[in-house]
Amino acid sequence: MFQRILIANRGEIALRIIRACREMGIETVAVFSEADRGAHYLTLANEAYCIGAPASTESYLRIDRIISAAELGNVQAIHPGYGFLAENSHFAEVCRESKIEFIGPPHEAMNKLGDKISAKTIAKESKVPLVPGSEGLIQSEEEAVRVAAEIGYPVLIKATAGGGGKGIRPAMNEATLRTELKNASAEAEKAFKNAGVYIERYVDRPRHVEVQILADNHGNAVHLWERDCTMQRKHQKLIEESPAPNLPKEVREEICKAAVRLVKAAGYTNAGTCEFLVDSAFNFYFIEVNARIQVEHPVTEQVTGIDLIKQQIKMASGEKLELKQKDITTTGHAIEVRINAEDPDDNFRGSPGTITKLRVPGGNGVRWDSHVHEGYRVPPYYDSMIGKLIVHKATREEAIITLRRALSEFVVEGIKTTIPLLKKIIEHPTFQNASGDTKFVERTW
Amino acid sequence: MFQRILIANRGEIALRIIRACREMGIETVAVFSEADRGAHYLTLANEAYCIGAPASTESYLRIDRIISAAELGNVQAIHPGYGFLAENSHFAEVCRESKIEFIGPPHEAMNKLGDKISAKTIAKESKVPLVPGSEGLIQSEEEAVRVAAEIGYPVLIKATAGGGGKGIRPAMNEATLRTELKNASAEAEKAFKNAGVYIERYVDRPRHVEVQILADNHGNAVHLWERDCTMQRKHQKLIEESPAPNLPKEVREEICKAAVRLVKAAGYTNAGTCEFLVDSAFNFYFIEVNARIQVEHPVTEQVTGIDLIKQQIKMASGEKLELKQKDITTTGHAIEVRINAEDPDDNFRGSPGTITKLRVPGGNGVRWDSHVHEGYRVPPYYDSMIGKLIVHKATREEAIITLRRALSEFVVEGIKTTIPLLKKIIEHPTFQNASGDTKFVERTW
Repeated sequence: MFQRILIANRGEIALRIIRACREMGIETVAVFSEADRGAHYLTLANEAYCIGAPASTESYLRIDRIISAAELGNVQAIHPGYGFLAENSHFAEVCRESKIEFIGPPHEAMNKLGDKISAKTIAKESKVPLVPGSEGLIQSEEEAVRVAAEIGYPVLIKATAGGGGKGIRPAMNEATLRTELKNASAEAEKAFKNAGVYIERYVDRPRHVEVQILADNHGNAVHLWERDCTMQRKHQKLIEESPAPNLPKEVREEICKAAVRLVKAAGYTNAGTCEFLVDSAFNFYFIEVNARIQVEHPVTEQVTGIDLIKQQIKMASGEKLELKQKDITTTGHAIEVRINAEDPDDNFRGSPGTITKLRVPGGNGVRWDSHVHEGYRVPPYYDSMIGKLIVHKATREEAIITLRRALSEFVVEGIKTTIPLLKKIIEHPTFQNASGDTKFVERTW
Repeated sequence: MFQRILIANRGEIALRIIRACREMGIETVAVFSEADRGAHYLTLANEAYCIGAPASTESYLRIDRIISAAELGNVQAIHPGYGFLAENSHFAEVCRESKIEFIGPPHEAMNKLGDKISAKTIAKESKVPLVPGSEGLIQSEEEAVRVAAEIGYPVLIKATAGGGGKGIRPAMNEATLRTELKNASAEAEKAFKNAGVYIERYVDRPRHVEVQILADNHGNAVHLWERDCTMQRKHQKLIEESPAPNLPKEVREEICKAAVRLVKAAGYTNAGTCEFLVDSAFNFYFIEVNARIQVEHPVTEQVTGIDLIKQQIKMASGEKLELKQKDITTTGHAIEVRINAEDPDDNFRGSPGTITKLRVPGGNGVRWDSHVHEGYRVPPYYDSMIGKLIVHKATREEAIITLRRALSEFVVEGIKTTIPLLKKIIEHPTFQNASGDTKFVERTW
């Protein structure tokens, strides 16, 4: 097992990883930008190095400086958290060359799954359902027109190098398809330096269901069941829960098994998530693999009782998975809401600044994962999330009741937060009866 | 169900009850002394009335003022919390006379169990093991000498009206017994206005194990398994856990069944706790019933998933217990530590004052029940507890690891706390292998 780990991240996830390491008896080396200097969570690491100016391109994205800090700090491994360099295969490769274990999948698997077309090929080979669409990249306008006619309009034109909702254009008919195909390709070339695009059927009002998987370096892979992350706004998840509500048992089992097949086929190891769209008839379609720990991992931890960060570290160190699939069960229902420093009344503009007053909920069924405190200054440079509120109760109904109670206790002064929007969502019948789709929040508010 | 409840308490337990009521859709009326005016948790109640000066005898113990507030607040029920009036049968009686439901046992059952001798009689009748001792009160010095000779020295002389460790004197032999008997009786008369004393065998190095029970007004009673509260200092519990470690399955089941027999025989309803001593051979002896919700109730909530405060309210409103004994199981292991504003380096003298800095642990497996925050002023007038840290993990070993991690994250400035002592206890092999007895902490530190 590692004696010392560097955490190439900041804020909530840096603290989360420090906590797991402290429980495992592993020392931690933190890194920080000038904007995070003096942050309280850094005091919980054994060492902390400044790696540059506030802009992430000058600090949290600087591979050279992070590797230097790792060498200075004499660590055996680096945990990238989520965001920043977490899915940067070049970073994973540099770690390997520097003889530092990257706590995540091997860069080869990351590359295979990072490219949409190659990911789809693997999915197809492992009999994981895909949204009907073109076989690989579109080579000509005529091919696009033929494929679209086969699968039926509306269709989506997607950049193979896109992600997180970027590089996607809808086409309602042949005329728009012809125009948008050129636009999409040109835009993809500009944004991702890769003009390749493909075509997919537009799935109407889908839910977002994803499966947590764990795979070791010895060929063992298990799933930790699914999460529902249908409550999104502009492809940013707002509320996540486990188990997925209203998902028939057979579908749940099938989707989880599909995820395991897929990661095994990709030679994927460590923790990862297979994302799916689920339509109203419970057909599910693979979208992509998130090759990292995810923001919403705590809901899975709550219902399974398994610490995902510890599992990541154990697997990266070469340990065999000690979990057997048949022993991994879920108890009760967990819901997470992300609290962002954003102003819902001003188009979710970031709301950095000093938190002048903070009262956080607690008590029965409540978990709070956050690095902030009264007096904390939210910097303007990074992701706006300031904390994750997770509730865990026997049933979804009870979990919603506790979530309502907990949200109602928050007092955050000095900055604006998304708490008012979260309160509205959880009171809406569409959320309460779990009948929403991924565009529900945007349509409604 | 009640629409509105008054909470005749303060601090942590007042907030705990407010939270349960908010989740149940019940409005709350809080009361506060001048010392608690402006406390943040009061803002979470629907109304709050000042009931007097800081001293509890002028506020939280003033039955007349609490009843007035209840009438002004138009409540149907009063929750007494723990401490203050929680086990005052006169208060329960006044509530009934005022046509306000007392959320606790009927005052008749409280009286029966509050008197040690009558409690012992009920225990005997329901075949619940008692520490060998005198049959009822000691009537003469000669009877005392005869009984002590029968059960064997050392013995304890106990005041029938005592409690919480008060009114107890050991006697190692006949000579001390003769002297101490007079002293004990005189002291009891002075302290409790009841000179009655009885004699019991001194149980060497016992553990403290207690059973949580719930009983409705329709004759149904269940247990929610046991807690181990062996880690005490001067009869004040410091650390509580569930399940009790190293307790054979058969003993665990027997002790829990005994508790149910006892409360049924006493006509006890609502939530309550039967306390037992357990010796090294796993013999268990009934000590007393705590006729209230207890400070340590969260560990039972964590392992059973049952909200005890909600159950109390439901039963007081006349609902039938919907819980079936066979469905009440425990999952994992929970440990609670009480954080007190006391100075362990100055004989645990209370340490009131303003909390100038506060960083509280969170994350996986951590529950925090507390009314305090940075800037909170701990008043000098009441119980020194400022919060309860509860951890819940799959095993006791993991729970201790998380507890260690969580305690290490605390930053409390401006006042002294018992955190340093708690840290020492959980690192001690005697705690870790659960081989301690109720005097372990006092002997060791």
